[in-house]
Amino acid sequence: MIEAKLDIVENQNKKPKPEGDDLPFGQVFTDHMFTMEYTREKGWFQPQIVPYEPITLDPAAMIFHYGQSVFEGLKAYLNSEGDIQLFRPEENLKRMNRSNGRMSIPPISEELVINYLKQLLLLEKEWIPNEEGRSLYIRPFVIATEANLAVAPSQSYKFMIILSPVGSYYPEGIHPVSIQVEEHFTRAVRGGTGTAKTGGNYCGGYKAQEKAADRGHAQVMWLDGVHKKYIEEVGSMNVFFKINGQIITPELNDSILEGVTRKSIIELLKHWNIDVIERKISMEELLQAYEDGQLEEAFGAGTAAVVSPIGELSWQDETMIINGRQTGDLTKFLYNTITGIQTGKLPDTFNWTETVKEL
Amino acid sequence: MIEAKLDIVENQNKKPKPEGDDLPFGQVFTDHMFTMEYTREKGWFQPQIVPYEPITLDPAAMIFHYGQSVFEGLKAYLNSEGDIQLFRPEENLKRMNRSNGRMSIPPISEELVINYLKQLLLLEKEWIPNEEGRSLYIRPFVIATEANLAVAPSQSYKFMIILSPVGSYYPEGIHPVSIQVEEHFTRAVRGGTGTAKTGGNYCGGYKAQEKAADRGHAQVMWLDGVHKKYIEEVGSMNVFFKINGQIITPELNDSILEGVTRKSIIELLKHWNIDVIERKISMEELLQAYEDGQLEEAFGAGTAAVVSPIGELSWQDETMIINGRQTGDLTKFLYNTITGIQTGKLPDTFNWTETVKEL
Ligand SMILES: Cc1ncc(COP(=O)(O)O)c(C=O)c1O
Ligand SMILES: Cc1ncc(COP(=O)(O)O)c(C=O)c1O
Repeated sequence: MIEAKLDIVENQNKKPKPEGDDLPFGQVFTDHMFTMEYTREKGWFQPQIVPYEPITLDPAAMIFHYGQSVFEGLKAYLNSEGDIQLFRPEENLKRMNRSNGRMSIPPISEELVINYLKQLLLLEKEWIPNEEGRSLYIRPFVIATEANLAVAPSQSYKFMIILSPVGSYYPEGIHPVSIQVEEHFTRAVRGGTGTAKTGGNYCGGYKAQEKAADRGHAQVMWLDGVHKKYIEEVGSMNVFFKINGQIITPELNDSILEGVTRKSIIELLKHWNIDVIERKISMEELLQAYEDGQLEEAFGAGTAAVVSPIGELSWQDETMIINGRQTGDLTKFLYNTITGIQTGKLPDTFNWTETVKEL
Repeated sequence: MIEAKLDIVENQNKKPKPEGDDLPFGQVFTDHMFTMEYTREKGWFQPQIVPYEPITLDPAAMIFHYGQSVFEGLKAYLNSEGDIQLFRPEENLKRMNRSNGRMSIPPISEELVINYLKQLLLLEKEWIPNEEGRSLYIRPFVIATEANLAVAPSQSYKFMIILSPVGSYYPEGIHPVSIQVEEHFTRAVRGGTGTAKTGGNYCGGYKAQEKAADRGHAQVMWLDGVHKKYIEEVGSMNVFFKINGQIITPELNDSILEGVTRKSIIELLKHWNIDVIERKISMEELLQAYEDGQLEEAFGAGTAAVVSPIGELSWQDETMIINGRQTGDLTKFLYNTITGIQTGKLPDTFNWTETVKEL
């Protein structure tokens, strides 16, 4: 691999690494970050690794006014040889460029970004926790920086990668959560921005999340914006159901985010010859399956939790208790397989992981 | 009025005021800005007027990742006595708090903000252009500042007001534009964030705007997200039609932004005993009216342009030429009346303007 040249300014005031088991998600950051600028004239330029520090923007910077931004989220692990492992990073960078396309942000070379990311990870290797379940969360993001109140795509951008060591999503072991199906609020609709990982899709969901939390639920299940009928996602995860032996996940449309975990699960199931289908699935159908005793498992799927079993699902006046509020066998097996591959404990038959050694 | 106490740090390096007629929208800013902070413990605190300057935020600040923000837009004018005039500022601040509510941002005292704004305007009075059609654009906005990658409402915010002198929207006189009805992309849908002035609603429209521009149209007309049938807005404006003597504007629903200009136009029309109705209106109905020779005028309505006549409207394979591509009489009359009231040239019978003298 060609080393993509970049400037490195080393941090002279390194922080202590967090200790203990109470590492909150996304609040501790490493000593360095990657930054790169874009202008119309120069394209993407000035790739550099610098100390993690505040950034300075004009108050009229477009990110503050019209929200033009995209982000990604993936994780780095240490394998048993002590090498850094990434899980399908090219999928995240391809998705970032799809998001960029939707948000009128110029594309970024995926190959270069992977290379920059690797250089950053090698520099921050000591920050990658090697305790069971822990990892280093990687957050690439792009923001519009032009100082201009015109409602139009920015002419300049900043791309950054920041890193945050994160604790286990399941410090007490994988366990099912309670979910509220949201009837009023909409996450995304066809023709909107739901397929892009852009900020506005997330803050728009806070109200629904608050409502669900007030009623004692952990997360919201989103229905489609047109009919309020078909299941789309759960929280910030894709969703799967096991109904009478068959695995069903909502088909990609013009409003669901295409998850890397979702894609990997589908590929695994196909490889195992387990019946998996991507299609529309309505709440009526799900309830019917439940009443018929055929709803065997349900789980969310995303980078943060890998899989998150659904133990209880509330919709209108109905409450469905799934698999006796226990994590289902398939859910558990998928969790073990994917985390096993990610951390190098299981063989990487699909060539999904990338090991980062000295460049 | 009680003067709301705030610190003022005067700018020692004042910029030259822009001269000439080529003032672009939203690119020149005055010497000072207003800022105020929020934390959970303190509420809103530290109101201050400081030199206009870049702001510094952690790269993990939530605005960069999940887009939690709201903004407002209004204008200040100089009347013939040389006093500063505001147009219904309390309407903008009420709407800001409605937007805050939708976006899980804590409310801000409208009375205090108006007072802070007045102090800022008095300090920046020399920046308010007094040439015909020019004004000082006022941009209040709130951004989420907590450094945290958890997908949840921020625990800290920054509220700012920046000011930008703007040229006439119609340097060559009010003139009709060509509009493309958007069939694929969606601005907003019921249950979404369309009724809030939040960044994500705007960047999500860039793709449609690019498409319209490529086909030679100035702006997009948005249809509802559910049926792609009913007219919602045009660009970043509300929309009005004169059909067979009656004025029709889409009724407020759960996806249209409630404009101050829209509200004022409805009140004016009622006052004049002109038949005005807020109701659903579909593209089919509009086309039928056009074919029947009853579509007499059409215009967008918003703070930037006040009214923007529609001369041509393209939908699917149809092109409607409205009022022979001339600005209609009612459109013109509304424009003259509102700008007249805003600048103090016409009597303020509705008590819409607020004059800002020494506090
Ligand atoms: C809205 C949404 N859906 C689904 C996912 C799951 O995607 P992935 O598996 O790539 O993490 C995410 C998280 O990235 C998301 O933000
Ligand atoms: C989406 C949208 N619709 C309508 C309007 C018109 O509102 P107002 O008349 O208050 O400027 C605006 C501008 O503020 C807007 O952003």
